Amino acid sequence: MPRIAYVNGAYSRLADASTNIEDRGYQFSDGVYEVCLVVDGKYWDMAGHIARLWRSLEALSIRKPIGDGALKIIMAKVLRLNKLRDALVYIQVSRGVAPRNHPFPDAADPTLVVTARPFDLAKSNATAGKGVALVTQPDIRWGRVDVKSVSLLPNVLAKQAAKRVGAAEALLIKDGKVTEGASSNAWILTAEGVLVTHPLGHEILGGITRQTTLDRARELQIPIEERAFTLAEAHEAQEVFITSATNIVTPVVRIDDHIVGDGAPGPVALRLREAYIDFSRRDA
Amino acid sequence: MPRIAYVNGAYSRLADASTNIEDRGYQFSDGVYEVCLVVDGKYWDMAGHIARLWRSLEALSIRKPIGDGALKIIMAKVLRLNKLRDALVYIQVSRGVAPRNHPFPDAADPTLVVTARPFDLAKSNATAGKGVALVTQPDIRWGRVDVKSVSLLPNVLAKQAAKRVGAAEALLIKDGKVTEGASSNAWILTAEGVLVTHPLGHEILGGITRQTTLDRARELQIPIEERAFTLAEAHEAQEVFITSATNIVTPVVRIDDHIVGDGAPGPVALRLREAYIDFSRRDA
Repeated sequence: MPRIAYVNGAYSRLADASTNIEDRGYQFSDGVYEVCLVVDGKYWDMAGHIARLWRSLEALSIRKPIGDGALKIIMAKVLRLNKLRDALVYIQVSRGVAPRNHPFPDAADPTLVVTARPFDLAKSNATAGKGVALVTQPDIRWGRVDVKSVSLLPNVLAKQAAKRVGAAEALLIKDGKVTEGASSNAWILTAEGVLVTHPLGHEILGGITRQTTLDRARELQIPIEERAFTLAEAHEAQEVFITSATNIVTPVVRIDDHIVGDGAPGPVALRLREAYIDFSRRDA
Repeated sequence: MPRIAYVNGAYSRLADASTNIEDRGYQFSDGVYEVCLVVDGKYWDMAGHIARLWRSLEALSIRKPIGDGALKIIMAKVLRLNKLRDALVYIQVSRGVAPRNHPFPDAADPTLVVTARPFDLAKSNATAGKGVALVTQPDIRWGRVDVKSVSLLPNVLAKQAAKRVGAAEALLIKDGKVTEGASSNAWILTAEGVLVTHPLGHEILGGITRQTTLDRARELQIPIEERAFTLAEAHEAQEVFITSATNIVTPVVRIDDHIVGDGAPGPVALRLREAYIDFSRRDA
């Protein structure tokens, strides 16, 4: 079955779904996006993702192309047309089509794109059960990565560096500190049993999954410190893991040539993953 | 007359010229571009722009979509179809269309786009004759701006900050030093008559117009220092100017609230502009 995509009011085959070459998303990476997880026909953390989408647009002064209700109707229709109940729904909004010129155009209608692709929770659980490897990369991204923009070229290059050596993700290092992964937030559990992750700010994306994981950790009464940590601290940690809508909570068993803990997925990470999944199934 | 654009082998009305929503240029800003100036039917610095296009592609490991000769034929045809003899030709190459995933796809054909729009040298000369205003902005761009990629969101925001106060360009400041403009290189002429511009490296785009201007300055026996300079030095300078294919050499008469020199376009900048134009007319 061909995949179906939504672009500005029309549903079409993905292969035919297009945007003008003067779309500012294409010429200037002047746009934002979200990836939302759907399991068994139900959204996990949907409100958080939609709220962040609007925040990203506001940060760039891009007009909201649509209201919450209409967006949800489109997302539901894209899922239905693609016959998907377990999926990653991708939403992209750009500033729209205008003659090429750096400043914001006086008049442009935002471009709204919604697509969906299959997600396999059992497969994701299997990956988490084995754990993944990371490679460190310098964090050379711009100064506003808290905005979930499509200006992702440095993330692409970092991910490619990871892929080249068979790793799942890049761990980004800035001024001696771990900021986050190329498309995930990064966490450690110290030898003392404290959960540490980078605080919110312009240097990291405020992950929706990060926030829900923090909430689960608090319920589980795990001590938490939101602060930057060094690569040395990650090496000395009992556990390391990453979070994102796509990864949920995924244990890390290796960073470059360094084996994390005893080399097996951390029990605290796996407990948080389980708590996350249980919560999301109830909350969805 | 509707504008005509080239996309991957086809010429069509610009309004109909499109790319797939899974073009990596659109989803990841995974692409590069050039803007080439054509005056009286002749390219200025064409070899430099095409060489840089290939260098940008190589830096990102994107396959060359076409050879030099074929690209030049397309550029000429786009000019002809648009009936333009004075134009800015825009070339964009992205990594191509592939299912959304950060790392490089195993197989994707690069997308090649060529468009053209009118350029009015007389109008540009008039602007240069009056000089332009700049506003300072923090340089929050990524760490590889020497690659002329479409990852331009910070540039867009800086340009918008300039437009908001009626300025023509943003002057980007990093670690207390001027790097360059949002879409131009920045120069000062010190009180001692030394021409200063930021050296090549990852922090600036190696402008083709910058290089040709350096060559003209050497011919005119103006002392040159390729080094970073501070905003205070720009304030104390006799002259300030910017260079780019679109601006050629354009004097700066104001930076924020500070009047440059005596507030009139600098004679050295105007002489360099004239030398640039004379050289390009002969060299084209």
